[in-house]
Amino acid sequence: MGKLSRKVAIVGAGMSKFGQWWPIKQNRDLWQDALISAMNSVDQNFDMNDVEELFLGNFTADLFNHESHLAPLMAQIAGLNPKPATRFESACASSGLALRHAVISIASGMTDLVLVGGIETMTEVPTVDVTDALASASDTRLEYPAGATFPGLYAAVATAHMHEYGTKDEDLFNVAIKNYENGAQNPFAQVQMTIEQVMEDKLRKAEKRGKPTPKWKGGTPYDFLRSSSNPYIAYPLRLFDCSLVTDGAAALFLASEDVAKKYTDTPIWITGTGQGSATLQLADRKSLTSFGATKAAAETAFQMSGLGPKDIQIAEVHDCFTIAEVVALEDLGFYEKGKAVVGIREGETKRDGKLPINTSGGLKTKGHPVGTTGAAQAVEIFKQMRGRAERNRQVKFDVECALTHNLGGSGATCVIHTYEK
Amino acid sequence: MGKLSRKVAIVGAGMSKFGQWWPIKQNRDLWQDALISAMNSVDQNFDMNDVEELFLGNFTADLFNHESHLAPLMAQIAGLNPKPATRFESACASSGLALRHAVISIASGMTDLVLVGGIETMTEVPTVDVTDALASASDTRLEYPAGATFPGLYAAVATAHMHEYGTKDEDLFNVAIKNYENGAQNPFAQVQMTIEQVMEDKLRKAEKRGKPTPKWKGGTPYDFLRSSSNPYIAYPLRLFDCSLVTDGAAALFLASEDVAKKYTDTPIWITGTGQGSATLQLADRKSLTSFGATKAAAETAFQMSGLGPKDIQIAEVHDCFTIAEVVALEDLGFYEKGKAVVGIREGETKRDGKLPINTSGGLKTKGHPVGTTGAAQAVEIFKQMRGRAERNRQVKFDVECALTHNLGGSGATCVIHTYEK
Repeated sequence: MGKLSRKVAIVGAGMSKFGQWWPIKQNRDLWQDALISAMNSVDQNFDMNDVEELFLGNFTADLFNHESHLAPLMAQIAGLNPKPATRFESACASSGLALRHAVISIASGMTDLVLVGGIETMTEVPTVDVTDALASASDTRLEYPAGATFPGLYAAVATAHMHEYGTKDEDLFNVAIKNYENGAQNPFAQVQMTIEQVMEDKLRKAEKRGKPTPKWKGGTPYDFLRSSSNPYIAYPLRLFDCSLVTDGAAALFLASEDVAKKYTDTPIWITGTGQGSATLQLADRKSLTSFGATKAAAETAFQMSGLGPKDIQIAEVHDCFTIAEVVALEDLGFYEKGKAVVGIREGETKRDGKLPINTSGGLKTKGHPVGTTGAAQAVEIFKQMRGRAERNRQVKFDVECALTHNLGGSGATCVIHTYEK
Repeated sequence: MGKLSRKVAIVGAGMSKFGQWWPIKQNRDLWQDALISAMNSVDQNFDMNDVEELFLGNFTADLFNHESHLAPLMAQIAGLNPKPATRFESACASSGLALRHAVISIASGMTDLVLVGGIETMTEVPTVDVTDALASASDTRLEYPAGATFPGLYAAVATAHMHEYGTKDEDLFNVAIKNYENGAQNPFAQVQMTIEQVMEDKLRKAEKRGKPTPKWKGGTPYDFLRSSSNPYIAYPLRLFDCSLVTDGAAALFLASEDVAKKYTDTPIWITGTGQGSATLQLADRKSLTSFGATKAAAETAFQMSGLGPKDIQIAEVHDCFTIAEVVALEDLGFYEKGKAVVGIREGETKRDGKLPINTSGGLKTKGHPVGTTGAAQAVEIFKQMRGRAERNRQVKFDVECALTHNLGGSGATCVIHTYEK
């Protein structure tokens, strides 16, 4: 795997407001929202007629919406027919892979300006429930029949991490508290409340409905998160350890070095792309607390870009569950195994810390429309690196180097990108 | 869209026996069969450890098998974890697109040896019927609710072609008769009988069961195909105009020019790749009798390779319905609009004709495991160009130039490749 033979830049990026939109908005409506948002972000000279190809990530509109073959349809909405349009699927890493293949297309000289999209509408679900549809990304012959859905699989990862490294419930709460804090600053996030605001909201509702006063009234977020208001989903993971069920779309315009400057004076260069795979089944892996696909993808992306973990200033990592953020920070080399929770506890991964993680709010509060997530991570990095993140979310230093980490299933797919100015 | 910056060769290719395999064989079993077949076809020095990446086409294991995220699983079976593994979906063009993106990966210098796969098991269908699952590749908001499934959509194409060009039932029968004749020579085909053999078989069974003697007894294939033994599925398309419901997998090894000679003295070079898109809905198109996606894909592939329709000596085209083969021959420039049926009638597209089409038997008799079809088309071309097609299927001349044409849905996606020795 060599270097990219041509430089590739993001010149525009945007997303729909994430939320639970069905039936008001469907896949095609959310895609329109994302497209308009991305088009508006391009500084100058943008003409959709110059776009040569669509790379679309979607996990399973097949199961969620009984819609497959989305790429030509979304190309139609973007006015791109009869140009090429391809859908990429690798569970929750689907649009990360669309981004990767777009980068390769431009680097190869096949194209100069392309559209990358991610799309998922999870709340329609006409025939199956969401957890069942998501479970199709696990080993449905050997793992799912044994009763393991994704909360259960990541619960096994969390339990193993607790066993091996002494990780505590509170360490996972810290991830959630931080990501709620970030999401509150993101106008595109599904949940725009801090944990304190969530507590206030619940108190107000309890009073209004004449329910007994929760024991955590007047307490800290830890008191709240340790209470029955935060029930176990799959031990040791509780409700606030889980990402959201979300509808949303994201879109990015990628350009070759030959044309990028036509559209912006501040292109964000994608300098490394890495992809790894692992067995679908957790049971087939040597370790539960480290993901081989992440390690392989990181090695490739870092080798390609010439960067290392120490160069990265901010990152969006795949926090489908709080434990996944912990494992990612370790597998990416930001922390030694078992040490990420210390950095998190000391605030290093907060917006004002030395390595802000998931400034968008992450999958935890921005939301996790599964096939959209990889593209949406790149949208956040694009905004942060251009200094244009909304509200008080913008980090206080100039970001020269960033990274996105997008995971599929229980880590059977990983795609990582590095970004530089 | 430029030339390929590096030459790309097929150095091995194989497929599982196509058929209706559930529950004896599932996706993973068929994939093993295809892998072994492809590995056995590599002339020398093959080591799976040299393979760098998997490009997998699958339409909707989501709906057919409640399995998504197939790429890392199939990579595991091939021993490729933690290397990259990506699934591509564009309905029946899924593995054609996997092949295309593999070509781009090698041409870009990212990889030197990759595995391309196609896989589909259509006969499991735990929750929906096959026609309903396939219909998810049409516009499921605007087209499917109006009652149009794929036989209906292609019936509209056939009716329009009959209206515009005077095409007759017999012209479509000719496509079926030829493809049955070819499939009878393919040990990997789902149906290995000529129409005459089908007639004999049906007569024998009718006699055995004491049923009345069919009127077409002693008659020609046309008598049979015009009878109630060939019932209408969606007028004017009858049973023998439709491709089959099939389980099967295919696999190809692609190599860069730098390493191809290590594996074979007879690499088959992919010299052109083209992809096009169109509106999902037939109603949104200007013409029903010509597919814009095919025309766009052909233009790109021909421009890239420097070839034209007249250079092509054999082709595998996407005959999901007999009318689709007719339209493809016209859209690809082999015949003027309305004239393909004349060439077909005069035997030009038979194995001993001047332009053999679908020597494999095509989707009509080889079978149509939808996401596998694009890769399986390339398998046939690989065999024919190396002079190693089984039984009496090998064409009698040396094939220097060939083409595959892989369609998704009712023509909303098309991917075309050209091959040279």
